[in-house]
Amino acid sequence: MGSSYERRVGMKKINLQEKLSLFDEHWTPKIIGELNGQYVKLAKIKGEFIWHKHDQEDELFMILKGSLVMELPGEKVVLNEGDIFIVPKGVDHRPIAEQETHLLLFEPVATAHTGDVRTDRTVDDQEWI
Amino acid sequence: MGSSYERRVGMKKINLQEKLSLFDEHWTPKIIGELNGQYVKLAKIKGEFIWHKHDQEDELFMILKGSLVMELPGEKVVLNEGDIFIVPKGVDHRPIAEQETHLLLFEPVATAHTGDVRTDRTVDDQEWI
Repeated sequence: MGSSYERRVGMKKINLQEKLSLFDEHWTPKIIGELNGQYVKLAKIKGEFIWHKHDQEDELFMILKGSLVMELPGEKVVLNEGDIFIVPKGVDHRPIAEQETHLLLFEPVATAHTGDVRTDRTVDDQEWI
Repeated sequence: MGSSYERRVGMKKINLQEKLSLFDEHWTPKIIGELNGQYVKLAKIKGEFIWHKHDQEDELFMILKGSLVMELPGEKVVLNEGDIFIVPKGVDHRPIAEQETHLLLFEPVATAHTGDVRTDRTVDDQEWI
């Protein structure tokens, strides 16, 4: 044993609403779990993010509250509560949320949330909560 | 491109309630998505499963509806809607649901849902929906 998961949180249940109550800031995903080299993260977003892609990693978005427009090359997909969307590696995307929206993300430990683009939005040391 | 994910479902949104409406049987997880060598699955369960473990794979349970008692060696963890629980590889576990309970699962493509135990509960060819 001794993965970073077990060192950090032990084998405990993780309540989504409790974890969501621990932060307010937008566009700063928080790590809530780890399995098989993948992180489970929560994020609160509002407004437009940047266009970016992840060269090596697929990324899953699950809408927990609110709604999200996922802009893709030549397409916009509207996602509401209870929807999941998987952006395959290498595909440019830009999430936009008119109102505050809560997301669960599932992506490899190595993933930077701004993908191949470094901006002032890039958070290097994503935090466990 | 050309992963089994893209061949099967394309880059489309996945609605959890719609997918849950497509099946009724218990203890037969259905695949709804794939990313980074992991499957996203839905399951409906009721009653007691078998004790088992996965030697190589961590397994994530998210409760979408209902509740679940996760039996672990020397411990029982009660999980309700909005709770996530990650069973690390190698840890024996047995899910029990008094009432029908709906789950989202994340686990590697290679994972057999009955782990190291083969019984009449084992479903070899898990189905995409």
